[in-house]
Amino acid sequence: MESQKQQAKSWFEELRDSLCAAFEALEEQADPTLYGQAPKTPVRFERTPWKRGKDGEPDQGGGVMAIMKGRVFEKVGVHVSTVYGEFSEEFRARVKGADKDPRFWASGISLIAHTRNPHAPSAHMNTRLLETTESWFGGGGDLNPMLEDYRSQSHEDSKEFHGAFKAACDKADPAYYEKFKKWCDDYFFLPHRNEPRGIGGIFYDHLQSGDWQADFDFTKSVGKAFLSVYPTLVAKRMNQKWSEEERRQQAVQRGRYAEFNLLYDRGTQFGLKTGGNVDAILSSLPPMAIWD
Amino acid sequence: MESQKQQAKSWFEELRDSLCAAFEALEEQADPTLYGQAPKTPVRFERTPWKRGKDGEPDQGGGVMAIMKGRVFEKVGVHVSTVYGEFSEEFRARVKGADKDPRFWASGISLIAHTRNPHAPSAHMNTRLLETTESWFGGGGDLNPMLEDYRSQSHEDSKEFHGAFKAACDKADPAYYEKFKKWCDDYFFLPHRNEPRGIGGIFYDHLQSGDWQADFDFTKSVGKAFLSVYPTLVAKRMNQKWSEEERRQQAVQRGRYAEFNLLYDRGTQFGLKTGGNVDAILSSLPPMAIWD
Repeated sequence: MESQKQQAKSWFEELRDSLCAAFEALEEQADPTLYGQAPKTPVRFERTPWKRGKDGEPDQGGGVMAIMKGRVFEKVGVHVSTVYGEFSEEFRARVKGADKDPRFWASGISLIAHTRNPHAPSAHMNTRLLETTESWFGGGGDLNPMLEDYRSQSHEDSKEFHGAFKAACDKADPAYYEKFKKWCDDYFFLPHRNEPRGIGGIFYDHLQSGDWQADFDFTKSVGKAFLSVYPTLVAKRMNQKWSEEERRQQAVQRGRYAEFNLLYDRGTQFGLKTGGNVDAILSSLPPMAIWD
Repeated sequence: MESQKQQAKSWFEELRDSLCAAFEALEEQADPTLYGQAPKTPVRFERTPWKRGKDGEPDQGGGVMAIMKGRVFEKVGVHVSTVYGEFSEEFRARVKGADKDPRFWASGISLIAHTRNPHAPSAHMNTRLLETTESWFGGGGDLNPMLEDYRSQSHEDSKEFHGAFKAACDKADPAYYEKFKKWCDDYFFLPHRNEPRGIGGIFYDHLQSGDWQADFDFTKSVGKAFLSVYPTLVAKRMNQKWSEEERRQQAVQRGRYAEFNLLYDRGTQFGLKTGGNVDAILSSLPPMAIWD
C-alpha cells in the first residue's frame, strides 16, 4: 500500500513537471505582434508550497500550488497535493468507505488553463488516488473553447481532443470511452442555462477494477493523453489574430465557467468545506469575466 | 387576504418605479469629463415582462425585469415578480407552512446596483411577501463598497446607510435593528475567505408579528429607507475621480460578490431551482470581475 501511494504521488508530481515545462515552452513561442515583446525574464510558473491544518496540529499533508500568469496563458494553475487525516462527520457518510473509518489519504493533480487568445481553448484536467477503507482512482479532462465556432463536437480541435482520450481509454478497456465521455457530458453541464460547459472530454470516479496497477496505468495514460493533446491545440491557435469582439465573447464564456465552478463543481465545494487551500481551489476561476 | 396581496404587489411596483426614476435622474448628472458626453437618447431602464411556466401550462404568474446599463450605473436591475403555484417535493419540507399544502403565492422586489465609479458603492435590496398556509414578509438591504477605505463600519457612508435602516427599524420595533443587522452580517459572509461581502445593512425573514398591517408598514419603511439613502450616497460619490488601480480593486471585489451569489445566496439557488427567470436572477452578477 505504502509503495502504491508513493508511486501515485511521484507520478502526479512528474506529470506536473512535464505540463509546466510544456506550457513554459509555449510562452517562448508567443508572437510578439500579438502578445508584445517577451519580457527579459521568461515567464515561469511560481510554485508555492502549502500545508493543510493549523500550526501545532498533527501533520495533515499539503501540496504545491503552481501558477503562471503569462502571455499565452493568461492564468494557469497546475497543483499537486497529498493530504490525509480524518473526514468530518458531514463527509463520512458521503465518501466511499469512510463510514466505517474516517481516515483518508488522497493525492492528485489538478490543472486549469485560461489562455489569453480566444481562439485557443481553455482546459481542465485532474487525476487522483483516494484511499479510505477502499482505494480508487478518479479524474478526467475537458476542453472549453471560448468561441461559438469551436464549441462543436465536429470541430477539428474537438475531434483531436476526444481522439487522444479515446486512445487512452481503449488501451485500458473498450467499454471505458463511451462511459467516461457520457459521464463528462453529464457532469460539465449548466442546467440553469441548459448548456454544456465546454465540448467535454472524459470523467471517471471510483475506479477500482480489482487490478490496482491497471487502474494506475490508465490514470497515467489519461495524464499523458492530456499532455500530448492540449499543448498541441494551444500551439496551433495561440498565434492566430483575435479581435476585441472575440475577446468579449471569451469573457462571456468565462462567466459561464465561473458559474459552473461556483454553483455546481463538487471539487470546489469539497475543497472549500474540507479546509483545502482556498487560493489553489479558486485559482480555477477565470482571470476576468463579464456578465453583460 | 386578496386585498392584502394586491396592496403588497402594488407597493412593490410603486417602489420599483420610484427607484428606477431616482437612478435615471442620477444618470443625467454624470460628469462628462469622467463618463463621456451623455448620449443623445438618455439612458433608461429597459423593462421586459416574463411569464413563469411553459406555454399551455396554467397561469403561474411572472414579473417584469428592469435593467439599465448606464454610465453611472454600469449595470442595475430592479425586478418585480408575483408568482404562484405549487412547490415541488423538494421545497415543501423547506418552506414554512408548505408541508401541509404545497400552494404558494409570492410577490416581491429585488434590486442589485453595480456602479461604474469604484468610489460609489454597489448595493442590494429586496423585500417580499410570501404566502403558504402561513403569510410573512422578508427582505433587507446591504451596501457593498468596492474600495478598502470605504469597507469599514466607521466610514461616513456606512454610518449613513446603517442610520437609514435603523430609523426604519426603530419606528416599527426597538428590538428589530440589532437583530436584523446581525442577521445581515451573518448572512452576507464568505466563510471560505473569512470576510464579509460588504458593510452589511439589515436582513429579515418570516416576519409575521400577528399584525399584518404593521409588518407591511415596516416592509414599506425598509424600501423607503433604501430609496432615501442609496441614491444619496451614489450622488455624493459618482463624480469623484477614479484611477485605473481603483477600477482594478473594484473588479476584484466584484469577484467576491459573484462568489457569494453563486456559492451561498439562497435566493439565487432558490430561483434557479424553482423555474425562476434565469436572466433576472443572474442579473445580480457584476458586469465584469477579475480573479487575479
